[in-house]
Amino acid sequence: MAENREVTIYDIAKHLNISAATVSRGLNNNPAVSKNTRKRIAEAALKLGYQSNTFASSLRSKSTHTLGVLVPRLNSHFMSSVLAGMEKAANKHGYNLIIAQSLEEAQNEKLNADTMFNKRVDGLLISLSYDTRTLDHLEPFFKRNIPVVFFDRVHPHASSISVVINNYDAAYKVTSHLIEQGCRRIMHLGGNVLRNVYKDRFDGYRQALKDHDLPFQEKWHWVSALSEEDGTAAASHILDMPASKRPDAVFSANDTSAVYCMMALKAAGFHIPDDIAFAGFNNDPISKVIEPNLTTVDYSGETMGDIAVNNLINHLKGVSNLFSTNSITLRANLIIRASSLKGSRQ
Amino acid sequence: MAENREVTIYDIAKHLNISAATVSRGLNNNPAVSKNTRKRIAEAALKLGYQSNTFASSLRSKSTHTLGVLVPRLNSHFMSSVLAGMEKAANKHGYNLIIAQSLEEAQNEKLNADTMFNKRVDGLLISLSYDTRTLDHLEPFFKRNIPVVFFDRVHPHASSISVVINNYDAAYKVTSHLIEQGCRRIMHLGGNVLRNVYKDRFDGYRQALKDHDLPFQEKWHWVSALSEEDGTAAASHILDMPASKRPDAVFSANDTSAVYCMMALKAAGFHIPDDIAFAGFNNDPISKVIEPNLTTVDYSGETMGDIAVNNLINHLKGVSNLFSTNSITLRANLIIRASSLKGSRQ
Repeated sequence: MAENREVTIYDIAKHLNISAATVSRGLNNNPAVSKNTRKRIAEAALKLGYQSNTFASSLRSKSTHTLGVLVPRLNSHFMSSVLAGMEKAANKHGYNLIIAQSLEEAQNEKLNADTMFNKRVDGLLISLSYDTRTLDHLEPFFKRNIPVVFFDRVHPHASSISVVINNYDAAYKVTSHLIEQGCRRIMHLGGNVLRNVYKDRFDGYRQALKDHDLPFQEKWHWVSALSEEDGTAAASHILDMPASKRPDAVFSANDTSAVYCMMALKAAGFHIPDDIAFAGFNNDPISKVIEPNLTTVDYSGETMGDIAVNNLINHLKGVSNLFSTNSITLRANLIIRASSLKGSRQ
Repeated sequence: MAENREVTIYDIAKHLNISAATVSRGLNNNPAVSKNTRKRIAEAALKLGYQSNTFASSLRSKSTHTLGVLVPRLNSHFMSSVLAGMEKAANKHGYNLIIAQSLEEAQNEKLNADTMFNKRVDGLLISLSYDTRTLDHLEPFFKRNIPVVFFDRVHPHASSISVVINNYDAAYKVTSHLIEQGCRRIMHLGGNVLRNVYKDRFDGYRQALKDHDLPFQEKWHWVSALSEEDGTAAASHILDMPASKRPDAVFSANDTSAVYCMMALKAAGFHIPDDIAFAGFNNDPISKVIEPNLTTVDYSGETMGDIAVNNLINHLKGVSNLFSTNSITLRANLIIRASSLKGSRQ
């Protein structure tokens, strides 16, 4: 139908009774065209439904001003904060984000990476799925020198950059804090150690035990997907132990499973922190609502997103070279709340 | 540099010592090429770093297989669920999502809409910012018959579809439930009534009062951005009232402000629900963690995202005509929890 015909600069020229060359210069904001005429051209372009040729010019310039973002899941508090930070930074520089989620499966991650590659994104930002084991699916990017930035769940690669927090150090601090509160039997609710975030948190926990001359016991490393249900299951596991064998503290690699473990133990009559202390990770909204409030590790997803995108765009603009940096580590803060402060009954 | 040169079908042909025409047919999975040769072509394409020509062919077909998504804020529990549902549906049909956030400002929404238009998205999915007052910024889409789907925060438009929940009905049910529990002085924490979601919740609340012969009082309609701080401020407002003038129930248009209002009143010694009952909206994770658990309205952001995208893609594929439908209303369920059940002290 008629409305679907592409509006060209010739239509604008005819409409205003001026030359197409003037319209072209006007649309490019060329000062050779008077301010008034430029305004009239802009108004006519809008009125007639003219679409600027950024799309076609992308083909010529080989730049789409589009960044691909691959994440495990879109619906987590942390990931939505990262995306918010990325969008703000990209928008400021005139870049757009194309997003996709792997739903924690390597196979989906590969398909999404292929799509991003064929969509010709200028760069890729990726946080790895739960079971990704190689980076083969990113080879097309590396081969074409399309920059790849890993964030949060990263994998070392010679010509890529990683944006992370110091998970090892944060976990070491959480565990040391629990030990300082008098806890000696500390259970760790962890994730898949294939992913750096969970391996580093586990390692930090173990090193803190060692440095305080406390033995590590395999049975206190409870690995799961850290869901609400996993937190409840961990509580059942604790309740099944003989009272004398139970942990006196739980350090969970995320807040969700810490909170659901706490709720189940509270319902069973445990007093927190006196009977069992708790610490989580992420500073999710629920950590400030659970009673007693949950000790946790705070780090800004928004800052991580902002830094990942700014480094990528600076590389694309030639301001700095991404490949000369190996990794960027962001600050993470231990937030001590009532769930781990023994002897301070609220 | 050499690595950046575009790999063509001629490079693949040379590499395999076959004709470019065979490579082209093989890449298009044409059965005239043997399965084995197709496999060799696909492997060579991957090895050499060939990028398929979806981008260039988009220009010819005038379809980019890209949908624009404009939201107020990316970092909310509800919106991240919507995005997760949208991505799943789009991915299944071979479409990608470009996302942008208005940060609740009409001016940003306009700039983002312009960008999406010039990126030639095949369709637009939009939830309006807090202060958007016209749809002028979407005129270019309407003029070019690029389909627009409004979701959650919508605005009536002749040639667009809206995907919503029945906010009026849900609010009517929440308020009626509070009245049935014996509450007579019900305060409403609401949002900007410029947006349908907040106007409809307010209207449902008011109608339920009227149908139960309870007077509506302006002073009990407390309008804010419904943040954590706004919830705490609402509690201070209640505490400032003489005891005899205080509400005996609060119905908040979201869970965040309900929970923060509850926490401040609990800290001041109020017993919930006996002194004051509470109900929220959204079924956010915090609603299941606050004590007592919060009565709220549950509706699936993921389903809303899925339905919005499926309707848009079916229209684009010619399977159904979006413009013949006016709106799609999704189910919302009242979830009654302890915060509003009077006389049932836990």
